[in-house]
Amino acid sequence: MVAKKAVVLLSGGLDSTTSAAIARSRGYELYALSFDYAQRHKKELDCARAVADALGVARHEVLDLPLGRLGGSALTDAAIDVPDAPDPAAGGAAIGEQIPATYVPARNTVFLSLALAYAEVVDADAIYLGINAMDYSGYPDCRPEYLEAFQRVADLATKQGVEGHGPRLEAPLVEMTKADIVRAGLEHGAPLESTWSCYRGGDAACGTCESCVLRLRGFEAAGVEDPVRYETP
Amino acid sequence: MVAKKAVVLLSGGLDSTTSAAIARSRGYELYALSFDYAQRHKKELDCARAVADALGVARHEVLDLPLGRLGGSALTDAAIDVPDAPDPAAGGAAIGEQIPATYVPARNTVFLSLALAYAEVVDADAIYLGINAMDYSGYPDCRPEYLEAFQRVADLATKQGVEGHGPRLEAPLVEMTKADIVRAGLEHGAPLESTWSCYRGGDAACGTCESCVLRLRGFEAAGVEDPVRYETP
Repeated sequence: MVAKKAVVLLSGGLDSTTSAAIARSRGYELYALSFDYAQRHKKELDCARAVADALGVARHEVLDLPLGRLGGSALTDAAIDVPDAPDPAAGGAAIGEQIPATYVPARNTVFLSLALAYAEVVDADAIYLGINAMDYSGYPDCRPEYLEAFQRVADLATKQGVEGHGPRLEAPLVEMTKADIVRAGLEHGAPLESTWSCYRGGDAACGTCESCVLRLRGFEAAGVEDPVRYETP
Repeated sequence: MVAKKAVVLLSGGLDSTTSAAIARSRGYELYALSFDYAQRHKKELDCARAVADALGVARHEVLDLPLGRLGGSALTDAAIDVPDAPDPAAGGAAIGEQIPATYVPARNTVFLSLALAYAEVVDADAIYLGINAMDYSGYPDCRPEYLEAFQRVADLATKQGVEGHGPRLEAPLVEMTKADIVRAGLEHGAPLESTWSCYRGGDAACGTCESCVLRLRGFEAAGVEDPVRYETP
């Protein structure tokens, strides 16, 4: 019997790694897709490769994307600093209340469109992505209604869709809290020790950027120790 | 008064050039976007640059896209030959009846997603593209219902959409015949002499690939001579 195939968007972070591990548990052969888009550091990509190996993917493509050429985000534009997570006690907005400087314009749409192309080429049944609406954090393209809209595009845009079997978008984490994600990762054998969530590119995770703060809170709420090393303050 | 801005997808072909010329006629300042995606030849990109100059665009970005890495099309995969247009008299399917080998997986979705990112960065009101459903030619992502689906994504995906003014997709050629497009191009001062439609990369256009055949029929039906040079058989 031929295994079902899934394209898995893999950043090397906690969420995408857990999402991919869930796809594997559901019996899919994995076709991983990562992007090199002028992030501030390559550590994420090294982690994505380690995660892909650990998950035993059938193929892993790392595509160069010149998103930095367009500008507009702290993650791709060297002129904008990555901020620490806002401190509500000091009058800052709570995480999730406004669109953060780390937002990359139309990023999920760009990533999904390339996942759609990849799915068409390998004839995948599904596309797995680790987006999450709970920890939505001001990113407009992480909401369930956004996913539904992109599903409609996927059904109309491709040869597969015309033939009646367009790839199904699966976002298994979309309604999970960060603690749920940590627990799901452990349950499905996700290699959490190889993941990287920090927006900054040090040897150890900074522990203070928005992404680190959300991750640490999730491990704490799950009652599990994060296997990743953090800078000691 | 600040001019309205439009991102214009510019391949350097007849359709995208005419579409961009229409945007200019409507008073938009133009932000052109072209892609280098392992086409068989760079002639298209030289033409796109010449067209952008002739149209007086405010900015022109040419982004490298590694679509060829994914494979799956005669336009990006050197292992698949570009076919001549099918000959119905010889038993071939008429143009438009099946998805051709030159179809690039999810191409318009990939291009539109990057146009959306660009529109967000420059705060454009509209995205112009030269897709056409008459000369649909078997490409699933050239249909009006596809565009409507992507508009929904554009409204949900971006910071602009959240703030209530997402960019509007404009496909002014979508219901035109090729002859209509030739006439519209002349009416709006499109630099047709700088355009390139041939799928092959010779010094002159081949005149026999599907794209050349459709273009030549259009000029003939419009009663205008094509200013581009063709190979003499």
